[in-house]
Amino acid sequence: MTPEVQVLLNTLWVVTAAILVFFMQAGFALVESGMVRAKNAINVIMKNYCDMCVGALGFWAVGYGLMFGLSPTGWFGTTKFAPNSAEPFEYTLLFFQMMFAATAATIVSGALAERIRFNAYLVGSFMITTLIYPIYGSWAWNDNGWLKQLGFIDFAGSTVVHTVGACCALAGLAALGPRTGRYAKDGTPRPIPGHNLPFVALGGFILWLGWFGFNAGSTTAADVGIGRIALNTHLAGCASVVGTIFLCGLLGRPVLLTSVVNASLAGLVAITAGCAFVTPGSAILIGLIAAPVMLLGEAFLDAFKLDDAVGAIPVHGFCGVWGTFAVGIFKESGVDVRQMCIQLLGSAAAFGFVFPVAYVMYRMIGSWMKLRVASVDEQRGLDYAEHGEVGYPEFQDGLLHGGTASTGAAPATRPATTNRPVIASPIGRN
Amino acid sequence: MTPEVQVLLNTLWVVTAAILVFFMQAGFALVESGMVRAKNAINVIMKNYCDMCVGALGFWAVGYGLMFGLSPTGWFGTTKFAPNSAEPFEYTLLFFQMMFAATAATIVSGALAERIRFNAYLVGSFMITTLIYPIYGSWAWNDNGWLKQLGFIDFAGSTVVHTVGACCALAGLAALGPRTGRYAKDGTPRPIPGHNLPFVALGGFILWLGWFGFNAGSTTAADVGIGRIALNTHLAGCASVVGTIFLCGLLGRPVLLTSVVNASLAGLVAITAGCAFVTPGSAILIGLIAAPVMLLGEAFLDAFKLDDAVGAIPVHGFCGVWGTFAVGIFKESGVDVRQMCIQLLGSAAAFGFVFPVAYVMYRMIGSWMKLRVASVDEQRGLDYAEHGEVGYPEFQDGLLHGGTASTGAAPATRPATTNRPVIASPIGRN
Amino acid sequence: MTPEVQVLLNTLWVVTAAILVFFMQAGFALVESGMVRAKNAINVIMKNYCDMCVGALGFWAVGYGLMFGLSPTGWFGTTKFAPNSAEPFEYTLLFFQMMFAATAATIVSGALAERIRFNAYLVGSFMITTLIYPIYGSWAWNDNGWLKQLGFIDFAGSTVVHTVGACCALAGLAALGPRTGRYAKDGTPRPIPGHNLPFVALGGFILWLGWFGFNAGSTTAADVGIGRIALNTHLAGCASVVGTIFLCGLLGRPVLLTSVVNASLAGLVAITAGCAFVTPGSAILIGLIAAPVMLLGEAFLDAFKLDDAVGAIPVHGFCGVWGTFAVGIFKESGVDVRQMCIQLLGSAAAFGFVFPVAYVMYRMIGSWMKLRVASVDEQRGLDYAEHGEVGYPEFQDGLLHGGTASTGAAPATRPATTNRPVIASPIGRN
Repeated sequence: MTPEVQVLLNTLWVVTAAILVFFMQAGFALVESGMVRAKNAINVIMKNYCDMCVGALGFWAVGYGLMFGLSPTGWFGTTKFAPNSAEPFEYTLLFFQMMFAATAATIVSGALAERIRFNAYLVGSFMITTLIYPIYGSWAWNDNGWLKQLGFIDFAGSTVVHTVGACCALAGLAALGPRTGRYAKDGTPRPIPGHNLPFVALGGFILWLGWFGFNAGSTTAADVGIGRIALNTHLAGCASVVGTIFLCGLLGRPVLLTSVVNASLAGLVAITAGCAFVTPGSAILIGLIAAPVMLLGEAFLDAFKLDDAVGAIPVHGFCGVWGTFAVGIFKESGVDVRQMCIQLLGSAAAFGFVFPVAYVMYRMIGSWMKLRVASVDEQRGLDYAEHGEVGYPEFQDGLLHGGTASTGAAPATRPATTNRPVIASPIGRN
Repeated sequence: MTPEVQVLLNTLWVVTAAILVFFMQAGFALVESGMVRAKNAINVIMKNYCDMCVGALGFWAVGYGLMFGLSPTGWFGTTKFAPNSAEPFEYTLLFFQMMFAATAATIVSGALAERIRFNAYLVGSFMITTLIYPIYGSWAWNDNGWLKQLGFIDFAGSTVVHTVGACCALAGLAALGPRTGRYAKDGTPRPIPGHNLPFVALGGFILWLGWFGFNAGSTTAADVGIGRIALNTHLAGCASVVGTIFLCGLLGRPVLLTSVVNASLAGLVAITAGCAFVTPGSAILIGLIAAPVMLLGEAFLDAFKLDDAVGAIPVHGFCGVWGTFAVGIFKESGVDVRQMCIQLLGSAAAFGFVFPVAYVMYRMIGSWMKLRVASVDEQRGLDYAEHGEVGYPEFQDGLLHGGTASTGAAPATRPATTNRPVIASPIGRN
Repeated sequence: MTPEVQVLLNTLWVVTAAILVFFMQAGFALVESGMVRAKNAINVIMKNYCDMCVGALGFWAVGYGLMFGLSPTGWFGTTKFAPNSAEPFEYTLLFFQMMFAATAATIVSGALAERIRFNAYLVGSFMITTLIYPIYGSWAWNDNGWLKQLGFIDFAGSTVVHTVGACCALAGLAALGPRTGRYAKDGTPRPIPGHNLPFVALGGFILWLGWFGFNAGSTTAADVGIGRIALNTHLAGCASVVGTIFLCGLLGRPVLLTSVVNASLAGLVAITAGCAFVTPGSAILIGLIAAPVMLLGEAFLDAFKLDDAVGAIPVHGFCGVWGTFAVGIFKESGVDVRQMCIQLLGSAAAFGFVFPVAYVMYRMIGSWMKLRVASVDEQRGLDYAEHGEVGYPEFQDGLLHGGTASTGAAPATRPATTNRPVIASPIGRN
């Protein structure tokens, strides 16, 4: 095969895969919006839509260079900033990596939903895409990165993308505190049901779709192995769902839609690190084990009153660690204790670097421009308070006119602390 | 072209097509969920999400081998079970075929919606993907299959996927009976409107999208002919919609969204068998004729009080037969009566094998674990009864708190036969 | 590289891109449906679903030949009508171009929403896809087209697709007049909020996804440059959103979801003409400037009481012109005043040909079969009046039974002028 043909094939495949990864943004937006209350549906979607936009400019200008530029020290790249005259295939890679950066950043939006201010969120997201994610990413994926030099394996980003995103989310949670009413005075968690579960399922399907590009595209080349990578990805997601159905049966719990969708994502996160190096049978095992790992992660967060509104940290954080570790167990060359240790080191490095840096960042943003909305705005909903609109104006009468949604109760007076334009009453509804 | 280049091109195309076929699951979920009442919206989606998961494991372990393993008798394959060390391209094919199996199984979920128990459905779906679909599939698509040896032509599965799925659905319908209230005492059908028609249209678009992978990917190779296949696919879907618009005009009926979406699917099913062998003009005719075939199918089912909740059988069954037969009429080499007979034989074999086997299976599942939900649960909705949650908790007040949805009527007492956790009341809705 | 490999690569890429462009139909349907009132949600989606279908048949039969057949005069093509025995790659191109034609036509549906009759709309849409779009298209894209011969550059259709679609929409608006209640007696515009903003965002994501196929597929060949084209496309969309966020901040306005989604589309339209000829930095500037261009376009329309229900004309028309002009400023060979003039000529030709022809067409359709629904039907909603169904029957009680939606007010009597079948009352809602 001539190099000319190879580079064309690589270009076609990587561009196609990047387009699929792009679409994961829509998946996140739907999953997260569906899992929050109607009064915050728009705010969460807006965070997804906009974090991708501010992040893309930052990643082009700075992030890509930090992550993939020449890295003499092994700690960050120093070239390839704001590329404007690169080789054609370099742009293809940049396009692909830009979508990965957006994925890492957008994991945060769901966890912090229903209370973080829109502007504060966007500033944090810009910093993650521009600095935090690329620096850690350079350790694992830059040819000269210190973790890569040690032999750390993270094929498509269980750690680089998912654990890093989850650590940012955890830092945000610690800085923000739980939503009002999420925990009773005695600490008992009180579930807050999402307003649109079909959106959650559709978002799950879209994320799954995008994951094929995420994992099989991480070859960054046309390769006969992408069929097995895609197959492994699919089987792990399926196995995690099957595991969850059985677990729910064993525990006597009903099988909830949110559990099933999150379980599929958990399996997909877990297979991400090793998808190119394990057999289909091992992929099934990795996915099966992701199911209890996610459940344990949920219990862990509740024990510490860390209110993750969509379960992002159990999925992306706990299962990211599991999947990264699993490479040492399941890779085709056999169980490898040294590899397991390196894998754990990589996960520890992600937590040890990302969590404190992101925590300090969110505190600084908070002291600069306030991190959390006012209590009255949280109650009222961030759609109204932050954007002056609501998601379903004809089905949320109360929110538009000052009453309570859909119950027909007497309208409350408009809170004095909000200073928003009155939304025009819909004209000619009937 | 070197074999190395050819296999890479084949891999890229077949993986891409398989990813598109995967996404059809989301299309089915939305079409079916949108066409049922809000109280069953989650249950239907859950069936789609989960049947794919249990089916994928079964198809990997058993189904693929039955369908594509060496088939000395021509009746089923005997090798390639649970493949763990296959050639790279074999995994690509398996990934593609796995998505086809999931499609066949998921056709059933819509037809049986609003009454079949979740667990019973999943067991049935597992059997279809693991045994029923692959055995019939081996007849038509295994190199040594007896139908293939006879000259049966079903390029992308009008019969193998769609008719087979529809026969399973029909068997389920016969075993389950119609939904309560669907037919008046004198047998007059009473339509039950779906709760979310925009979902139906979005699902239709997604299915259509996936169909390009379904049909053009069935080359299982990169081929210059895929452009015409995709074009034929599109034109047949379009023609069926245009035919339906004219038919509605002739009959003085309003043009309903559900009719238009189902018509597009009918045209797509019909062109599936012959898409690689007919001209664009013939594709338009095949699609046009699918429109009345679907309408006749609907009337036929109602005459027998077979309550197909989403019209799956007219679309996938009747138009699957039509499309398979049409190959004999429209293939480029000219009208071929012998081919028509073989095509009819293939359809008859699908019905004659799948319907009785699936019927016995559903009866056995029924005697083992009950097939149908209790009457009170059917009335209450399967979302609440089977999963303990509802799709839109803020817009379905009654369901959460014991009253009737959206009407504000006095709450009914909770039915004694359900034994589900009380759903937490949403916190801080306003 | 052998020609055999090249044509296979081209086929794979162009088919993949065309499939992505197809999916833009779903994006338009969601954006437009979400931006109108619930009572018209179905009607708008139906227009999108059906215009694609009637248009595809017309474009196959006539449009493709007019646009890409031999064009001896440079004004329209005269061969390649109803192709049934073409070369394989010709079908691939036809499939791709058919999706472009559908895009141009469907831009119209949103602008004219909530008042144009379904049948009248479909006739207009058929004429656009079959005649108006292909004739202008032949000027710019046919090898012998007079604009192309002059040196007009419109790589992927800022003018050919987007400005042409917007001019048709403008003509329709002029023929139809604004929606009842849209402007107060003193001319003050009164916003009419869309009923489902999450749909708008999902539609935006889907359009963005499809745009990668739209722009990067317009190479109509596998090319190492498609990575940069996709990157430029993405950066322009992102930059326009960032520009809008800053503009809203400067103007003290809340950041609305509809503004953000339309801004992203504005940036994508603007980069469409030049995506293959500019650097990423220039793409960012082109996108940034699209933000104020769109805002000015909105103000311009309101000044003339042109009631564009979804803001399609500012996005596709004004930003189409901007993007076409921007090629003269930003193309890599440097600022080129002569090119700028040619670009302006191309835009002027689009307006000068399309607007009057489409206006006359809509007037003729109006005198033949009425263009606008009756006032009572506009008030009642086109879903009920034109299709006899509503989008969310369980959440729009009033519409089904004669009362007002969701408020529980006393039912109005059914308007005497509508003559539709009574919709069956949902059975067993609880």
